[in-house]
Amino acid sequence: MNYRTHNLGELRSSNIGERVTLSGWVDTKRDLGGLTFIDLRDREGITQIVFDIDVAEASVVEMAQKLKNESVIKISGVVKERYSKNGNMPTGDIEVFADSLEVLNSCDVLPFQINSEEPLNENIRLKYRYLDLRRPQMRRNLLMRHKMIMSIRNYMDEKGFLDVDTPVLTKSTPEGARDFLVPSRTNAGDFYALPQSPQLFKQLLMISGVEKYFQIAKCFRDEDLRADRQPEFTQLDIEMSFVEQEDIMNEIEGLAKRVFKNVTGESADYEFPRMEYAEAMERFGSDKPDVRFGVELKELSDLMKDCGFKAFASTVENGGMVKAVVAPGVAEEFSRKILSEYEEYAKTYFGAKGMAWIKVTSEGVNSPIAKFFSEEEMKAIIERTGAQVGDVIMIIADAPKVVYGALGALRLKLGKELGLINNDEYKFLWIVDFPMFEYDEEEQRYKAQHHPFTSIKSEDMDAFMSGEMEKIRTNSYDLVLNGSEIGGGSIRIFNPTVQAKVFEKLGLSQEEAREKFGFFIDAFKYGAPPHGGLAFGIDRWLMVMLKENSIRDVIPFPKTNKGQCLMTEAPSKVDDKQLEELYLASTYENELKK
Amino acid sequence: MNYRTHNLGELRSSNIGERVTLSGWVDTKRDLGGLTFIDLRDREGITQIVFDIDVAEASVVEMAQKLKNESVIKISGVVKERYSKNGNMPTGDIEVFADSLEVLNSCDVLPFQINSEEPLNENIRLKYRYLDLRRPQMRRNLLMRHKMIMSIRNYMDEKGFLDVDTPVLTKSTPEGARDFLVPSRTNAGDFYALPQSPQLFKQLLMISGVEKYFQIAKCFRDEDLRADRQPEFTQLDIEMSFVEQEDIMNEIEGLAKRVFKNVTGESADYEFPRMEYAEAMERFGSDKPDVRFGVELKELSDLMKDCGFKAFASTVENGGMVKAVVAPGVAEEFSRKILSEYEEYAKTYFGAKGMAWIKVTSEGVNSPIAKFFSEEEMKAIIERTGAQVGDVIMIIADAPKVVYGALGALRLKLGKELGLINNDEYKFLWIVDFPMFEYDEEEQRYKAQHHPFTSIKSEDMDAFMSGEMEKIRTNSYDLVLNGSEIGGGSIRIFNPTVQAKVFEKLGLSQEEAREKFGFFIDAFKYGAPPHGGLAFGIDRWLMVMLKENSIRDVIPFPKTNKGQCLMTEAPSKVDDKQLEELYLASTYENELKK
Repeated sequence: MNYRTHNLGELRSSNIGERVTLSGWVDTKRDLGGLTFIDLRDREGITQIVFDIDVAEASVVEMAQKLKNESVIKISGVVKERYSKNGNMPTGDIEVFADSLEVLNSCDVLPFQINSEEPLNENIRLKYRYLDLRRPQMRRNLLMRHKMIMSIRNYMDEKGFLDVDTPVLTKSTPEGARDFLVPSRTNAGDFYALPQSPQLFKQLLMISGVEKYFQIAKCFRDEDLRADRQPEFTQLDIEMSFVEQEDIMNEIEGLAKRVFKNVTGESADYEFPRMEYAEAMERFGSDKPDVRFGVELKELSDLMKDCGFKAFASTVENGGMVKAVVAPGVAEEFSRKILSEYEEYAKTYFGAKGMAWIKVTSEGVNSPIAKFFSEEEMKAIIERTGAQVGDVIMIIADAPKVVYGALGALRLKLGKELGLINNDEYKFLWIVDFPMFEYDEEEQRYKAQHHPFTSIKSEDMDAFMSGEMEKIRTNSYDLVLNGSEIGGGSIRIFNPTVQAKVFEKLGLSQEEAREKFGFFIDAFKYGAPPHGGLAFGIDRWLMVMLKENSIRDVIPFPKTNKGQCLMTEAPSKVDDKQLEELYLASTYENELKK
Repeated sequence: MNYRTHNLGELRSSNIGERVTLSGWVDTKRDLGGLTFIDLRDREGITQIVFDIDVAEASVVEMAQKLKNESVIKISGVVKERYSKNGNMPTGDIEVFADSLEVLNSCDVLPFQINSEEPLNENIRLKYRYLDLRRPQMRRNLLMRHKMIMSIRNYMDEKGFLDVDTPVLTKSTPEGARDFLVPSRTNAGDFYALPQSPQLFKQLLMISGVEKYFQIAKCFRDEDLRADRQPEFTQLDIEMSFVEQEDIMNEIEGLAKRVFKNVTGESADYEFPRMEYAEAMERFGSDKPDVRFGVELKELSDLMKDCGFKAFASTVENGGMVKAVVAPGVAEEFSRKILSEYEEYAKTYFGAKGMAWIKVTSEGVNSPIAKFFSEEEMKAIIERTGAQVGDVIMIIADAPKVVYGALGALRLKLGKELGLINNDEYKFLWIVDFPMFEYDEEEQRYKAQHHPFTSIKSEDMDAFMSGEMEKIRTNSYDLVLNGSEIGGGSIRIFNPTVQAKVFEKLGLSQEEAREKFGFFIDAFKYGAPPHGGLAFGIDRWLMVMLKENSIRDVIPFPKTNKGQCLMTEAPSKVDDKQLEELYLASTYENELKK
């Protein structure tokens, strides 16, 4: 090691008097009382270097005075006791009086200061990601990502899971989202697809007899991007044979505890309660409820069915519902203006037709709709919602999907804005028994809510056979952490006859099923074991665990929500020659001319 | 656990009398003396199940008699001492008398027998990969791949390396081979490229201050495929800062020892000798010599320069060389026909104009070219080559590239065909000091042999500055195992001025360099540390370690050498609509019409 005898987090009082060689980045520089002080940084820490004309030659001191922040230098010198000790840093008891200095690489004018606490423009950070990653927050996030992934792998290994890597150049997986395509040159006219998940491969590995599989895999979806989505994301993929739902959930709970301990350092006795999908919707309006606070949805439909307020009564009559949440203690604080902002939120993002509200005050209720209700009706509403003096009841009457969506969102908004959420808390929750089918209004047909390989709960098999599509629940489970879905999975169908029946109910003819899933259906003929599994979104899980607000802050080299890498400028134009080799022509220029 | 109380490698004499539930695949079935014996298999082993009419109901026994191989069943019964113990299997002391049997999934007629020792057609194996992976050889290979990857990760973690994942959807890396392109829909007209390696990203991570990085990454090259190449392969990628060549090599030797111990179970005291590239070429005609046997190349050029055989003399005069290898003890065995097969091999695959041979016998030499040499000349040849009575000297006179290529290959062919190689031995070798530039005859210009970021040996910097391109050696190293290059890397240029000079020598103008490497060159302005690293081909390393002949046998789901997955039938046609969304049109149909 020519460049260093020690790293920069290592020297202590016990090293005083030693001659050392150190290398790193100039974090800060100060000239003080004829001395030049450098805080020299590497990934392990910071050590103070002193250039003193009594110790070093004038040319060395002069060079030191001219050093720019973030330049890379190598120094040699002797460790001394620090004049003014700094208890805040591990190396704060010492400093190194340098007598030699080599500038390994000097640094140009920086696009932003590395050690600044100022908020930075994210696009600048992404363009200079290699500098952004020098910042303490990002160094921590890289380290925690490493720790998380290592602890997952070691846990899975200990439990007997095999890490099996599945192809990136593969065939379209029929999972709904759009595939990224990769034109093949050696098979001209044909295309590979990047995997949306290793779903088919992991089930095939169960048919192979692997029994316990895991992989941390890159997955790809060419979706229109949302704030927390990336075209490329990292997934922990798991599958097991000869197991039932509880076996898988138990294994995962152990994993989650291990990961939390290794990443956060906390080994709290996390609990993993189970809640049925139907209950989650009724109580929280969401299949990924944040259960760190209350403000649950209250059912008013039965009370409103015959009430004097026609808008509510007719909603119930027409198959809709009326539900409410209670905003605690804000009756005075919430002006009409604030309340109409809440209403706008529900209308704009969730398609609600409106939001009614009732303030409960010590002088009685205050509400634009109070006049439509009898005293008994109003009393029943207050009783049912549990509202106290000082609370505001917010009510939505609409189709169930709208009511759940809007009230679930209002609940979360209240939780955040009223400070009802304890941010130091981590609360896990399993949501189970998802519906098998959901009706697609656009396509006017039933679709698999999860995917068509999800098995049906045995108690719902009769209903399935008789075609009661809406009632059918699956052996499925999502793991929710603080209101984010971090993973989900199911026990799969392993019986070819049941699988054929599901395809039929989804409106796929035998030919269509064969065309879409051909080789996969065939594989089940050769002795498929019962199996199930799940997949975790590593990026989101890490984001929630580190309490970051953006998924981009936990991904080393993320893309913008337009799918661009601002650093490399990918995606970009390619030579026509490259397209010719692939037997492709771009129609984009023509398109622009239209 | 409803499906099993024990796995199928677990039961011992101590379990006799216990009631157990077992699940797995029917490996074999035998009807014998009124009993039905099933070898039931899971990934942990095999347990013998007995169906006996005295124990189980007639319907159960009847069902058992009808079982097909590879069906998946669940049985319950009592563990008994085995009548005829089988010392070859861990569960051989017991058998389970089943009284209940559930066929979880029956198996159709198989395309091939799982437990057959017969050689199988590889295309059938690949089409039914999920069945192929049930075979003992492939189960071992999957397990060993897992062990190898786990042991790499744990070693790197222990040594302080951070696992950082770099993008799969990225920009062309200018490394020579062809990129796979991925059209972007959200950025219409633009393309991502799949990475040929994370080279630029790992160097950027050094500029980020990560200091020690590793990743097991999927890499992609759209090359015309050769027998041991895959369009998608797995690479162990490593980079370190503030290190020199020896620091990296030491780290890697520790890694290699660990991996060998964890995968092969052997912890031999492997040595890692270093050999300069130039020496490797002279002695073995190869930059990845198999040093498990001798048959080294012998230099004859100086002897032939003025010899009576004009063909040899003029070759030397015109800048070529004459070299030989000695095939030991085959003078009698090697007929003219065999020798001309060797000659054909050298001619066909390596462009040699011919191969001369000299048999050394107890009655003197026997050679078609003997007549051209004086007695002294012949004596000198024999002396120089060290040939003994019974040996055959094989001589190639040609341009250096041809001589190295042909004799290096003849040497390997002799090694294999004469059984000179000890297949139980693993021999590592570092090849160092590769040339920086090689002349591209086709493009009539110098190219970087490794890549243009490789640093030049300090003792060759003067030659570099004065433009002696052929003499310039780099701080580079390949790790060779039993004649296969399993990894390679270099210390990188980190000084922007030297980097600019290299681009200049490669004939790249500043503008061209900027266009090709723009953001990467910029990054070096902001404090780049000295750094270097290397990359290993995981697939090839594993193949050599497991003594497999095909890289496809160590990849879970490989592609053929036409880049096809026979199981999923990728790549395949896509809907025109999908291409339209990407603003692309296929020109392949038109091409076919031409």
